[in-house]
Amino acid sequence: MALIEQRLHEMGLTLPQPIQTPAGVKLPFPFVRVLGTRVLISGHGPLNDDGSLATPLGKLGRELDVEQGRLAAQRTALAVLASLQRALGDLDRIQAWTRVFGMVNSAPGFTRQPEVLNGFSELILALYGNERGQHVRSAVGMAELPFNIPLEVEGEVSLAG
Amino acid sequence: MALIEQRLHEMGLTLPQPIQTPAGVKLPFPFVRVLGTRVLISGHGPLNDDGSLATPLGKLGRELDVEQGRLAAQRTALAVLASLQRALGDLDRIQAWTRVFGMVNSAPGFTRQPEVLNGFSELILALYGNERGQHVRSAVGMAELPFNIPLEVEGEVSLAG
Amino acid sequence: MALIEQRLHEMGLTLPQPIQTPAGVKLPFPFVRVLGTRVLISGHGPLNDDGSLATPLGKLGRELDVEQGRLAAQRTALAVLASLQRALGDLDRIQAWTRVFGMVNSAPGFTRQPEVLNGFSELILALYGNERGQHVRSAVGMAELPFNIPLEVEGEVSLAG
Repeated sequence: MALIEQRLHEMGLTLPQPIQTPAGVKLPFPFVRVLGTRVLISGHGPLNDDGSLATPLGKLGRELDVEQGRLAAQRTALAVLASLQRALGDLDRIQAWTRVFGMVNSAPGFTRQPEVLNGFSELILALYGNERGQHVRSAVGMAELPFNIPLEVEGEVSLAG
Repeated sequence: MALIEQRLHEMGLTLPQPIQTPAGVKLPFPFVRVLGTRVLISGHGPLNDDGSLATPLGKLGRELDVEQGRLAAQRTALAVLASLQRALGDLDRIQAWTRVFGMVNSAPGFTRQPEVLNGFSELILALYGNERGQHVRSAVGMAELPFNIPLEVEGEVSLAG
Repeated sequence: MALIEQRLHEMGLTLPQPIQTPAGVKLPFPFVRVLGTRVLISGHGPLNDDGSLATPLGKLGRELDVEQGRLAAQRTALAVLASLQRALGDLDRIQAWTRVFGMVNSAPGFTRQPEVLNGFSELILALYGNERGQHVRSAVGMAELPFNIPLEVEGEVSLAG
């Protein structure tokens, strides 16, 4: 078994199945696109292991508290890793995490987006270590997100040159 | 005539003139910047053929319904293509669409951003085909957008190496 | 003294100290990551010279007017330049500004995001000139931002090849 997947297994974490798109919605784009050594990642939200949208849905500061948001961010990282695993064949091929753009569905007055996104960043750092896992990041508050998911993350990673 | 422009012509679509910036506003940046084979694209909104802002202005879920949003997204794609045509000279030079970041001006409770952005993605795929046209995408809900435009899209394309 | 820093000095502007993160918040990511000739920049907000969050905090169109927003955007550019200076050693190494993504904390009905972001773009153009300073840009309205800062900017610059 590849090293990163082994670490996930040891942490008791599972990569989810591909997203089960809500009925009637077409998503005419790939979740990952490889451009030489750059790997671009579409916006992902939190999924259950079977690929259905994870609950609770809704906004931070209304339907979800910070701790629920952190768990949703960890689930979002797992959804991103699952897409990367399917596109790359092996998560060990990722040489560097480079950019994480975290968008939090935010009720009026909710300003703790960084703490929510730490659920994403901390999993990546635990899996890849401080050097390979290091990424620039923004964490910002959105008015609304598709299907009322609590957060959406897009980003970029690099492969060996 | 170049192939992509010919397809646009056959579809009855026209590339708009450069944006007529609302009075008193300076936009001190280019709409496209070429960096070797990477082409970065500034945020664009929907334009009329003469470069004026397309109407209706406003938010999805309030001033615009999903079908109006899809048409605005198609007009936004045409505005992006027009900027790329001016910067590159020929739209056939684009080897790959790579990233589309779609920001929808969203009234409270509007969560159908992906359907709106499909108006953008479907035109790109119709023009460039499934391989060249394939792009990673995020579709998210903004609190407000400049001039009250209904959506804004930024992104990136690649030229042949 | 390096040329860009000399220009800043002549303009009477100072690069701020690293951000003093509000108590209890961990930001487990770098503010800049260098990938060959690409330099990726995390989301930055406006800082005082000592690295504390600049006031007023809040939303454009409510706690801040456009002129206050422009000044906050200039302070954000200084915070970005300070991070780049620490990561690169010398701001003269930047060959091209390439992407500026400007997110404005926007009260309902505030649609003047471009004028706010001009406070950022105009400083970069004054320092680097129209060729090196030229960047693609989006300026959009967020529902909320971390710590209630009035704007956040992420972006990218290039080094000589």
